[in-house]
Amino acid sequence: MLPIAVDAMGGDKAPLEILVGVRQAVDDGIPVVLVGPPDLDHDADIPLIPASELIAMDEEPGSAVRIKKDSTLVRAAEAVRDGNASAMISAGNTGATMASALLRMGRIKGVKRPAIATPIPVPGSTPTVLLDAGANAEVQPEWLVQFAQMGSVYARQRFHMAKPRVGLLSIGEEPGKGDSLRKDAFKLLAVAPGIDFIGNIEGRDIMSDTVDVAVTDGFTGNVTLKTLEGGMKALIGALLEAFSAEEYREHAAALMPALLPLYTSLNPDTYGGAVLLGVDGVCIISHGSSGATAMRNAIGVAAEMVEHHMVDEIRDAIAAGA
Amino acid sequence: MLPIAVDAMGGDKAPLEILVGVRQAVDDGIPVVLVGPPDLDHDADIPLIPASELIAMDEEPGSAVRIKKDSTLVRAAEAVRDGNASAMISAGNTGATMASALLRMGRIKGVKRPAIATPIPVPGSTPTVLLDAGANAEVQPEWLVQFAQMGSVYARQRFHMAKPRVGLLSIGEEPGKGDSLRKDAFKLLAVAPGIDFIGNIEGRDIMSDTVDVAVTDGFTGNVTLKTLEGGMKALIGALLEAFSAEEYREHAAALMPALLPLYTSLNPDTYGGAVLLGVDGVCIISHGSSGATAMRNAIGVAAEMVEHHMVDEIRDAIAAGA
Repeated sequence: MLPIAVDAMGGDKAPLEILVGVRQAVDDGIPVVLVGPPDLDHDADIPLIPASELIAMDEEPGSAVRIKKDSTLVRAAEAVRDGNASAMISAGNTGATMASALLRMGRIKGVKRPAIATPIPVPGSTPTVLLDAGANAEVQPEWLVQFAQMGSVYARQRFHMAKPRVGLLSIGEEPGKGDSLRKDAFKLLAVAPGIDFIGNIEGRDIMSDTVDVAVTDGFTGNVTLKTLEGGMKALIGALLEAFSAEEYREHAAALMPALLPLYTSLNPDTYGGAVLLGVDGVCIISHGSSGATAMRNAIGVAAEMVEHHMVDEIRDAIAAGA
Repeated sequence: MLPIAVDAMGGDKAPLEILVGVRQAVDDGIPVVLVGPPDLDHDADIPLIPASELIAMDEEPGSAVRIKKDSTLVRAAEAVRDGNASAMISAGNTGATMASALLRMGRIKGVKRPAIATPIPVPGSTPTVLLDAGANAEVQPEWLVQFAQMGSVYARQRFHMAKPRVGLLSIGEEPGKGDSLRKDAFKLLAVAPGIDFIGNIEGRDIMSDTVDVAVTDGFTGNVTLKTLEGGMKALIGALLEAFSAEEYREHAAALMPALLPLYTSLNPDTYGGAVLLGVDGVCIISHGSSGATAMRNAIGVAAEMVEHHMVDEIRDAIAAGA
């Protein structure tokens, strides 16, 4: 397998934690090529693609990618395009990661718009894959059908679901519920090839075992994802606060063995990040807060996507659905 | 104060739990008039407005309200319109409750569309008032400005916030972020009178102390609310599951005194339900799962809204902003 190109400078914990995660992946037998400044202090056995520029987290993605041609993100995407890497990963600027992948790798033929697929943890079950998680603030009904098809390929490969259940995120279960986008999309999804469409779902279904692929526009998807992140954080913070009083500490500590597996199963790091589906190459968008474990997991996910020829499978699914 | 009209037949736990909640409110000195079937078995000291029909939870709201003129919902709204009640409350069909209020009470002059305001619990802080939580699946930018104005009145009155911070729910904090609706609404909100607009907020801000009134369309609002409900339920369910093993039970029980206040503060029942703002009367939409406590609290909220002349204050705010 060609090495996986990892942006050494992306994310809040770059480069140190990124390098630790890369080290772990390499030690586990996954080839990696770092993309970073020529003078990056890194282990000599890991190759480096030099890139002299950095796109910051808050830079405007479109112009940053056009102007900074020697940035880590642009160089990583070029490495995939030119056959020097099998996949790219960054925990940096999400928009710029998308723009680099889109501009350098291009779209898979027939794909109207790439979409971000994000696995949302479900306690005691496989995750729900949400897309679009933020690539397209405004969408057309036909795009949602492709999101469903691409998301189904991803759910099958990544989580070994034989027949992922696709739900359209709306505000009521009946077919007529929702805005005009949802009503139109429902009709198209009901007859679309290559997916198992179960109808409308509601927000409360996302973290339950009723749906595998939740399809929505990038505005709703992004709000949904961040709302869940904030809600979980608030609840866990409140629990820790409640348990921190002297008289509870001992009991809380005794419960840790029960809490840790739950924490791991709900931690987004476990899934290594989101995947940009629809571009002609594997592109993983890791959370800006990614540490070593998240990066190690992201590299594992990328390797799996490459080995299972996910891009080709999406190509086939789009061609069959076109 | 005129009595508060309570739909005795609305919700999953009607009429029994509704009647218990009404009893508590009456005992606490709040006048209530029940709306229900003439043969309803109820305490003799609580008056009853007879209504021979019932609108079921899954009935199509518009036609149900037009056809069932002697339903509890239509009669409750008429009681407010005719000056026989000061407010209406139902835990029944949300759409039909809105339609009844809208058709019988009418809109406040100048209000383009009524919106549902729902308080979302924030651990350790005042709640965030989300609107619209589902009344309008598709909205115009100007409506969002009115939602902000009405929500600010509600937050001031209900939660005694001197100067509620209004945020526009979007997918990035910068003014240019979001879809075209958000971009247009941002410009209008930035210059709108009567509100303290702090700019865009993201999903993760909702359950934090950074915003008091979160403004969005009814599609996004409903998905957001139900996603949070589902996420909290999943997390709490997973916690209880993890704690149920023999070796943890004792420690979990010891933590109960710490968990109960948290549970209460996060329980939607605490706030007694959502309020339909913009109609010419107080209308409270309680959760379908409302029990006695939720109904007691909803009646308390309704009484407070009546005593504080919330409808008149919204009338003034809309007139000043028009």
